[in-house]
Amino acid sequence: MQRDFDEKVTPAQMSTGAARVSPGRGPSRRSDVAPFIAMDVLAEAARLEAQGRDIVHLEVGQPGFPAPLAAREAAIEAARQGRVGYTEALGLPRLRARIARHYADWYGLDVPAERIAVTTGSSAGFVLTFLAALDGGARVALPQPGYPAYRGILHGLGIEPVAMVTSEEQRWTPTPEDLQAAFRTGRLDGFLVASPNNPTGTVVEPGTLRDLVAMCRDENALFVSDEIYHGLTFDRPAQTALSFSDEVVVVNSFSKYFCMTGWRIGWLVLPEWLVRPVERLAQSLFISPPALSQHAALAVMDCGSELEANKAVYGRNREILTKRLPQMGLPRFAPMDGAFYAYVDISAHSHDSFDFTQRMLREIGVAATPGLDFDPDLGGRFMRLSIAGSSADVEEAMDRVSRWLER
Amino acid sequence: MQRDFDEKVTPAQMSTGAARVSPGRGPSRRSDVAPFIAMDVLAEAARLEAQGRDIVHLEVGQPGFPAPLAAREAAIEAARQGRVGYTEALGLPRLRARIARHYADWYGLDVPAERIAVTTGSSAGFVLTFLAALDGGARVALPQPGYPAYRGILHGLGIEPVAMVTSEEQRWTPTPEDLQAAFRTGRLDGFLVASPNNPTGTVVEPGTLRDLVAMCRDENALFVSDEIYHGLTFDRPAQTALSFSDEVVVVNSFSKYFCMTGWRIGWLVLPEWLVRPVERLAQSLFISPPALSQHAALAVMDCGSELEANKAVYGRNREILTKRLPQMGLPRFAPMDGAFYAYVDISAHSHDSFDFTQRMLREIGVAATPGLDFDPDLGGRFMRLSIAGSSADVEEAMDRVSRWLER
Repeated sequence: MQRDFDEKVTPAQMSTGAARVSPGRGPSRRSDVAPFIAMDVLAEAARLEAQGRDIVHLEVGQPGFPAPLAAREAAIEAARQGRVGYTEALGLPRLRARIARHYADWYGLDVPAERIAVTTGSSAGFVLTFLAALDGGARVALPQPGYPAYRGILHGLGIEPVAMVTSEEQRWTPTPEDLQAAFRTGRLDGFLVASPNNPTGTVVEPGTLRDLVAMCRDENALFVSDEIYHGLTFDRPAQTALSFSDEVVVVNSFSKYFCMTGWRIGWLVLPEWLVRPVERLAQSLFISPPALSQHAALAVMDCGSELEANKAVYGRNREILTKRLPQMGLPRFAPMDGAFYAYVDISAHSHDSFDFTQRMLREIGVAATPGLDFDPDLGGRFMRLSIAGSSADVEEAMDRVSRWLER
Repeated sequence: MQRDFDEKVTPAQMSTGAARVSPGRGPSRRSDVAPFIAMDVLAEAARLEAQGRDIVHLEVGQPGFPAPLAAREAAIEAARQGRVGYTEALGLPRLRARIARHYADWYGLDVPAERIAVTTGSSAGFVLTFLAALDGGARVALPQPGYPAYRGILHGLGIEPVAMVTSEEQRWTPTPEDLQAAFRTGRLDGFLVASPNNPTGTVVEPGTLRDLVAMCRDENALFVSDEIYHGLTFDRPAQTALSFSDEVVVVNSFSKYFCMTGWRIGWLVLPEWLVRPVERLAQSLFISPPALSQHAALAVMDCGSELEANKAVYGRNREILTKRLPQMGLPRFAPMDGAFYAYVDISAHSHDSFDFTQRMLREIGVAATPGLDFDPDLGGRFMRLSIAGSSADVEEAMDRVSRWLER
């Protein structure tokens, strides 16, 4: 069984977590996935706020900014007119076409709208991709540390995640040698890489990305590229895996750069042969993505200046952390090429990031995510700070943590 | 492989459906689910409309009415304020509490909010229930005809659907004898029943429902009650399976009675031991239900008078059909106890409902769903008409179909 973030905090909650099982029936084996600790921290932080506590939120990977005004107005207009019915399972045709244009605008690539599937967040994109392309018993390599829901989704769908441990020395990015080693562990059916990565923010070099795509083609493994943090790089734009092949699956979302987390809207770019299988599964498992969110997403792709202004704040927050973390005895953190996270080595203070972040939340009201969420092996030495909120919040958090560590 | 509704219509579409597979890789076996034909009809009808055709929509099971104004205004206000972040994975606590109150208001039952999970439509509710409670290889009995996505979801998740064929003589509802027969086919891990049913609209008698729940308890099979059409009965209210046991799973949604299809928002009532497994899976597979839809759902539960007025229209449409279908030589249809469907025997005109509805759409612009969507065995003799739109639309459709059948 998995360790729950709230298990030490609110014993009353435990009744729902314990294996209190009806006679004879119990939860499935495949439901035994690790809790997404960041979400448990969010719930715990919300409970503390409901008690009147003042919490600084650095735990959940979501922009502190709402979706740009024009996007919200598009949703408001659709709601006013009552245009909130089911859409096509793969999304509104004009949204698929607009996303296709995005590939021309951002990457100079010609991607036909027919290969784009609008999804209920990248979450649904992963579920649909893995169900449509892989059967139970398949094996998929995942760089570690990485987004914890990958493991939850794969395990839930009967696919074995194969951990590829990356290292600080290699900027936490997978190398062709790492992938070669993963292939040597046995048949691999897929490989999933995120660049910029969550929680480390590091970007895979274009040449390396090309090599990884080619290796998967040679080994007949599905290459899945999580590009959810594209648009959020600080030195140069990230390259899409579509530059190297039409046979990769690209997973993306309006949640991060476009500031639309709770709208639950994202997209896939699929190889042609996966479109209809994904469509059939989407019809049964999702019916359609949320309609208002699709209207908003259509508008948000033309909100560049507001989105760039938001990104500039993340850039300032990154500078604040770069300056202040070393001053408080936390000098080691991943390079933050992109995304809006700092993956901070806390080993000078604790080797139990779970306990560390829980105390930090309860004692000084700063919510952060333990590294164990992203890396079950080495994550005890790390915590992830999400710096997508206001600079004032980030400064306040730094003040609190700094005083706390001095004690 | 499955037959696609559009395969005869738009050959250009076929390229995405054909088994054009990259060297060595292809779609998974579990992606080989039947298309949800109603959704394919919707897409085809939308294509015809884009060409300027005037289509009457009786294909998709969604109210012709938008969500009540107060619900839309709640979403508008949340969008204006930018309150559209991730929520707790099981939904906003006050929405869970409001749904709990709904069980007191509607059924006189005391259901704790902790057993309620807000989901991204009933679709996510089914996915989470089956993943959390059953492993691959499990067997679940389904009355037939029934909602086609059940089969798609079960197959996609590695669960074997066991068809329980119901009959017109028994008002298309499963009897204890039917379930007994299903138990004799081998170990059953679950049984899923909808009342009122889609596509037939028939309601299971309370005594029968109680017996079916008891049989599942005795046989240690999970009882899943799809109550999505509750609130939409014409003679007496439908009874919830929760009246008979806390160990059943109830799946419900704001889509039908509450007129919120494209909002993708629903809920589960779970046995206590399933709450935390569902929560962990929801964290990984969905993160959270769409936020705006949760705000609207909270408001919609207090919009009774507008919703009852909508329901009165379905009642009038039911009367229109009851009068007009026999006049045009279609006298046999299911009793329409509830929901907003007529499941019409077309065998006097065709034994291929697929072809029949396709011609009806192309020749007279009336979109309906072939019975094959709901019943792969006998569905060739039936079509489903959804009468949740305006009475004018239903009259117009009856005029067109009547003239067409005379030709």
